[in-house]
Amino acid sequence: MRFDIITVLPGLLESPFAHSILQRAQKKDLLEIHVHNLREYANNKHKSVDDYPYGGGSGMVMQIEPFAACIEKLQSEREYDDIIYMTPDGVTLNQQLANELSTVQNIMILCGHYKGIDQRIRDIYVTKEISVGDYVLSGGELPAAIVVDAIARLIPGVLSDETSALSDSFQDGLLDAPLYTRPADWRGHKVPDILLSGHEGKIAAWRDEQQLIRTKERRPDLLND
Amino acid sequence: MRFDIITVLPGLLESPFAHSILQRAQKKDLLEIHVHNLREYANNKHKSVDDYPYGGGSGMVMQIEPFAACIEKLQSEREYDDIIYMTPDGVTLNQQLANELSTVQNIMILCGHYKGIDQRIRDIYVTKEISVGDYVLSGGELPAAIVVDAIARLIPGVLSDETSALSDSFQDGLLDAPLYTRPADWRGHKVPDILLSGHEGKIAAWRDEQQLIRTKERRPDLLND
Repeated sequence: MRFDIITVLPGLLESPFAHSILQRAQKKDLLEIHVHNLREYANNKHKSVDDYPYGGGSGMVMQIEPFAACIEKLQSEREYDDIIYMTPDGVTLNQQLANELSTVQNIMILCGHYKGIDQRIRDIYVTKEISVGDYVLSGGELPAAIVVDAIARLIPGVLSDETSALSDSFQDGLLDAPLYTRPADWRGHKVPDILLSGHEGKIAAWRDEQQLIRTKERRPDLLND
Repeated sequence: MRFDIITVLPGLLESPFAHSILQRAQKKDLLEIHVHNLREYANNKHKSVDDYPYGGGSGMVMQIEPFAACIEKLQSEREYDDIIYMTPDGVTLNQQLANELSTVQNIMILCGHYKGIDQRIRDIYVTKEISVGDYVLSGGELPAAIVVDAIARLIPGVLSDETSALSDSFQDGLLDAPLYTRPADWRGHKVPDILLSGHEGKIAAWRDEQQLIRTKERRPDLLND
């Protein structure tokens, strides 16, 4: 699977893609991540990519031309299943959307910055607008990294233990059960006896019950869906 | 405002905190971000911080002892308004929560990795559990960066134009209106006439209307809250 990310801050994305699961997935050739510097596609000598908004108001707006040049260059090289714009007014990312996107081949992601991007980029090129949540951030870079991470870990072979992703929160519509590891007693705070019992069946039943309790307490909305 | 982030992957957070608004906020002394390597608090010679889950199952669980040592060292140095654990079963981050958190002084953030952290860390130390959205990621590092970014841009003086954050999506419960900048005509795709009219009042009314239309179309749930 291949991601092409277009940003004015390519350096911001360096370390998130160079560690842990994303690094290993790239080394195993299961994942390619290419970060493109939007400024290289600016057609003016100051390499500026933004301008004042028509109609006035605060903040700057990213111009259509550099994005169009970069997107069209990439499109001339391969077909993209989706061109995603990260924006707080997009469809909210959830596990189901991540699952769906993990089955495609080539994804382009546009990162906004400043106040946002010219609406015409969205109208002409973008096939999906995705939000990572109902909050405003400085730019689309961290959200792009979130999308890559959420998707990449679902590609077969990326996680060392494939059952691990399937037992994660949300995959069965429920939150995870509490987890415990050694020591069994830490300053008097003890691990629940059931987990030390060795009864596989009882442990599984306890975990199912805990998942339901936790989901009811914290996210009753998930049970209604 | 000060953030202390505890993680097994301090390197992953290097570039997100070294660019753009977060970098400038730190240079202006409006923001301090300290990233702590959890492994330095491991009390075994292999510097391991995780172990198998009690009761069996896939994935590793982060142990209580290294977190306890790091948290208690930091607590001995200053008081923390909140100790936040980033977890998909936490309270979902939204703009209101970001606004609230932007008014405090010291925040500690614990990043989970592997399958999650020992429940006793959550029971004993954590004051808030926050999720950035209903999807599973490789670890709490990117979510921690999201929280820092969402909060930091609300600290007075961090954004160059303070009205900018106030006019963002969500701050008035509505999504943003479409944005346009030069050129007015790009390959026949034109900026709406109203934005070129110079009528401030009409432009403001058009934007209000567009905000309502977009919110109704995309996020009717925001209008019902």
